[in-house]
Amino acid sequence: MAVVIFSPYSKRVEVDVGGSLLDAARLAGIKVESLCGGKTKCGKCKVKISQGAENLNELTLVEKDLVDSELLANGFRLGCAAKIESSGKFFGSVEGGSHVVVEIAPEDQERAQKILSEISELSGRFTPHPLVNSYPVDVPEPTLEDPTPDFERLATFLNREYGLVNLEIGYDLLKELPNIVRENEWSMAVTVWDNKNILSIEKKRNLERTYGIAVDIGTTTIVGYLVDLRAGKVIATEAILNPQIPYGADIMTRMNYCIENSNGLNELHNIIIEALNKLIGEICAKTGIRLKDVFEASIVGNSVMEHIFLELSPNFIALSPYPPVIKKGVNVRACDLGLKINPRANVYVLPIIAGYVGGDNIGVILSTNLYKEQELTLALDIGTNGEVVLGNKDYVEVCSCAAGPALEGASLKHGMRATTGAIEKVHIDGDTLDVEYETIDDVPPRGICGSGLIDLIAEMLKSRVISNTGAINLDLKSHRVRARDNIPEFVIEWSDKTKNSLGDIVITQRDIGEIQLAKASLYAGASVLMKRRGIEEKDIDRILLSGAFGNYTSKESSKIVGLYPDIPLNKVKTIGNGAGSGAICALLSREKRKDAQMISESARYVELTVTPGFEEELMSAMYLPHQDLSRFASLEARLSK
Amino acid sequence: MAVVIFSPYSKRVEVDVGGSLLDAARLAGIKVESLCGGKTKCGKCKVKISQGAENLNELTLVEKDLVDSELLANGFRLGCAAKIESSGKFFGSVEGGSHVVVEIAPEDQERAQKILSEISELSGRFTPHPLVNSYPVDVPEPTLEDPTPDFERLATFLNREYGLVNLEIGYDLLKELPNIVRENEWSMAVTVWDNKNILSIEKKRNLERTYGIAVDIGTTTIVGYLVDLRAGKVIATEAILNPQIPYGADIMTRMNYCIENSNGLNELHNIIIEALNKLIGEICAKTGIRLKDVFEASIVGNSVMEHIFLELSPNFIALSPYPPVIKKGVNVRACDLGLKINPRANVYVLPIIAGYVGGDNIGVILSTNLYKEQELTLALDIGTNGEVVLGNKDYVEVCSCAAGPALEGASLKHGMRATTGAIEKVHIDGDTLDVEYETIDDVPPRGICGSGLIDLIAEMLKSRVISNTGAINLDLKSHRVRARDNIPEFVIEWSDKTKNSLGDIVITQRDIGEIQLAKASLYAGASVLMKRRGIEEKDIDRILLSGAFGNYTSKESSKIVGLYPDIPLNKVKTIGNGAGSGAICALLSREKRKDAQMISESARYVELTVTPGFEEELMSAMYLPHQDLSRFASLEARLSK
Repeated sequence: MAVVIFSPYSKRVEVDVGGSLLDAARLAGIKVESLCGGKTKCGKCKVKISQGAENLNELTLVEKDLVDSELLANGFRLGCAAKIESSGKFFGSVEGGSHVVVEIAPEDQERAQKILSEISELSGRFTPHPLVNSYPVDVPEPTLEDPTPDFERLATFLNREYGLVNLEIGYDLLKELPNIVRENEWSMAVTVWDNKNILSIEKKRNLERTYGIAVDIGTTTIVGYLVDLRAGKVIATEAILNPQIPYGADIMTRMNYCIENSNGLNELHNIIIEALNKLIGEICAKTGIRLKDVFEASIVGNSVMEHIFLELSPNFIALSPYPPVIKKGVNVRACDLGLKINPRANVYVLPIIAGYVGGDNIGVILSTNLYKEQELTLALDIGTNGEVVLGNKDYVEVCSCAAGPALEGASLKHGMRATTGAIEKVHIDGDTLDVEYETIDDVPPRGICGSGLIDLIAEMLKSRVISNTGAINLDLKSHRVRARDNIPEFVIEWSDKTKNSLGDIVITQRDIGEIQLAKASLYAGASVLMKRRGIEEKDIDRILLSGAFGNYTSKESSKIVGLYPDIPLNKVKTIGNGAGSGAICALLSREKRKDAQMISESARYVELTVTPGFEEELMSAMYLPHQDLSRFASLEARLSK
Repeated sequence: MAVVIFSPYSKRVEVDVGGSLLDAARLAGIKVESLCGGKTKCGKCKVKISQGAENLNELTLVEKDLVDSELLANGFRLGCAAKIESSGKFFGSVEGGSHVVVEIAPEDQERAQKILSEISELSGRFTPHPLVNSYPVDVPEPTLEDPTPDFERLATFLNREYGLVNLEIGYDLLKELPNIVRENEWSMAVTVWDNKNILSIEKKRNLERTYGIAVDIGTTTIVGYLVDLRAGKVIATEAILNPQIPYGADIMTRMNYCIENSNGLNELHNIIIEALNKLIGEICAKTGIRLKDVFEASIVGNSVMEHIFLELSPNFIALSPYPPVIKKGVNVRACDLGLKINPRANVYVLPIIAGYVGGDNIGVILSTNLYKEQELTLALDIGTNGEVVLGNKDYVEVCSCAAGPALEGASLKHGMRATTGAIEKVHIDGDTLDVEYETIDDVPPRGICGSGLIDLIAEMLKSRVISNTGAINLDLKSHRVRARDNIPEFVIEWSDKTKNSLGDIVITQRDIGEIQLAKASLYAGASVLMKRRGIEEKDIDRILLSGAFGNYTSKESSKIVGLYPDIPLNKVKTIGNGAGSGAICALLSREKRKDAQMISESARYVELTVTPGFEEELMSAMYLPHQDLSRFASLEARLSK
């Protein structure tokens, strides 16, 4: 047993011999980024040991491989590889035993990344028609002439005044009914779900307080929207990082965690519920709204996030043929999930389309109205996973692209999420190859995020630092172009200009390859969907980019790297958080909720891996912008300059 | 603090100073009969103190008034009036402190009364069509070509093979779904409720095991019927006394208990649930059926018993205008009630008609089919409460009669429930006034039960021991006719012939008055219903007597005392436990369950107390058989002999 202390938080946890510092951080509730889920593969979970390094195992080969020698010299190690070795037994007692102090940079811990919570304008796209409604009720008291029982007395009134039929009441509320109606002298506010279930009976003055919460559970970020159901408006927004990140950056590692740990699903489920409770608690506190006045929740996420949220095993989504547990929308009582809103509130989890096309994608389809319009839309939802939708009122086809987290920056050498110090815009001088950039919050750079990377690749392509294969031209006469350990790289900024002199910020040949793969998979997905329907670029009326990446990234740079088909830029629109918008639509409109189910049943899922020609599409889309430059006619002149 | 020991059970409980022996008995789980609920009014809770009488308060005036001096001399006291006085503090320790030994006669404790569990033949009256059905299921495994999610995969199969649509699955079962289907390799038995809710997914070999339980919760007795839902047959029956009896013999005292004790409802609810669990446990053990294979329960009772079973406050039924909490049938999950059958099983509680006409009465209407037939039926359901139904396919009208527990014997001086030693048949020699009788189990008499009382009154009337006003003729030259404390009484048996020489078994003038009131209220109820519809005796096609009293009582004697209108005896039928039969019907047939709701809504409840002319009807029906002898033309000749 050893004590691990996390500085500057002074969090202390006891860890057995053999336990890793990443385990210790999880135990302490400290967020340390890990993409591979602690499998000593991603090299992301770097922590600085400021005391007690002698109580840890010796530096492993993996660490030497994955961590810069400069950082190693400064006391950095990988949280997953550094393990408690000394049990302190030589000191005779646990109190006098070994301890390790780990330093966590405050910005890693406390600053949430620049999370996309904006939603596109929803009004006009649908008429608010929520499932939850409150009614003022004044029921005549029972008399000998009319001793109708309490429930039927209330139901008769609601039927006569508001046309509600076949009303039901939950058993727990039924038990309270006789006292509630008499305490309120038969004059009350009655809240009803879906015109049929009585959720709450309260003092009449609570009539105006009917709220709902829409939540987008992303692999990386969670956004909550507090909605006034009567006004049909979002009144507050709050975003946090998904606390499951320490268990793996992507859904594959989290599914593996569930498969390999018998209690893994329960663990991941509990922390997401806890996070939502915190998020909802904060958003309610901020607006002065009582938790018990939140009468419905609407949840979107990819299929794995939705499964874990519901504590449904995602294990089989990980294995061919990838079947989810359930496809249709799920309704659960908040109290059965442990969600701390009104305990009788319904929690609606949007339906999914397939194991890798979830409710978040239905949210995009739902909020854009693309399934109702004549215009042909190509929508790209780019998050930690990428999905492509092609369709209009006649058909909707979707596919899932293994884009990976590269476009979010997280998996690259100096990639980082879009938070303070991330380089988000880049320009390269075509002659000098000097780099100009902007960082988030205008502080010295710590790394480069998705939008910066796309700018960077586009600029490198234009200035011929890289060729259309992505290869860095080492023949260039610039000290920014170099090779380390035989891997070519391009220096974006020199160490002395960076935050804490962390070393030169570079993009490596390997990083460029990852970006190419990510963008190629999106392009190839779109291309396969188009070919299946015989659609050409000219047939597409609009491209919609959903998600943080699309929102903050230059549309022009995206096109130059070949992320989406060659469509005039005025037809390309960003729609903010389409998934979150979808959750809000479903919360506010019973018609939208029906549509969600209809989309889930009718949208056609195209499994790319078994689609003939997909591999070829993917390979030729690896080029920048494409092997077949005629596909990017609008760029041809410029790039062949 | 004192220790109270109940002999011969050796149950020990500690009681504070001021606590009564009745409290101690409840604490010990020992059943001591109490009609008034411990209010020192009924004089029923007699217990014999065999040691430690000095630790109790002195004999109270109430006890001197309510308990025979002979019994008092033998150490008997009233459990409610006898209270712990000495705290034993003079002995220096609780161990050496005061104690009281109370003797309970084994027959009081252990023998259940002769409970009516028989049901009339139900087959032919409806086609079994239960809500619970099990289906064999063999679902093809998911493939890349068809990766339909688990739930939809199962639902699609059930739809295609069995026509089930819009299937739902509970959240808790959904969480288990992916593992269950794979453990069973997609070959299973699926049990569905109401064609829409999946209750259970199991090994296929459990397909044949689909059971239900129908329970009639009477104020005094509870009867359970285990039903094979596939075969549509009752396979076992079990009956117990209602463990709420110590809290009061009738519903009024139990409602008062709920009103006066803040935790009273919860207490009464818990003991009824506990009793049902014991009952169901025994009946399943006896038949070798697993509790988890009991997939539905159907419950009938009077409105108060149903309310307490559901833990719904009965308090307002006690007070004018007597509104119940809910009228329609209630469906609750077994696990939400704590009922130990399959936790997902539905518990269906039959609808009621009014505060004093409950699901038991709907059960009678349901099982007799009277609401479907051309013949006009008058049905009397006589239990601790009495209800009268008049109707046919065109209308059904009901009223509740404050018959009280007199006809069950319990409230009379030597009245007793129908258990061992109860006089159940009586004949009086018209000349000598000698009494011949039969007792239950042919043992020396301990008292007289309902059927014996009706025989006795009829015989006393025929032999002119009493007049048509019920007055005992003290002028008769018989030592059986006498007065004690100025109250006339008739000796049925002398002390030396009784069990344990308890004293002479008598019927007092007051007892006769109570029987008269009970029978008059039933007759007057029937009479009021008939007059409202302009019905005369000749229009009635049949009289049905439901419940133990009607089943075991001489139809002729009942008519002689004037319990029901003067209809030829061949039109009078006993139907056994009509309420229990109704619960079985509702368990086995979805049509019957719909009919129950229809009856609840359409049957007209007649409140006797506000019906003009009811008081006159009641007063003239107090006579034996009636003040207006022309109403009993068939008896006129005989009684005026």
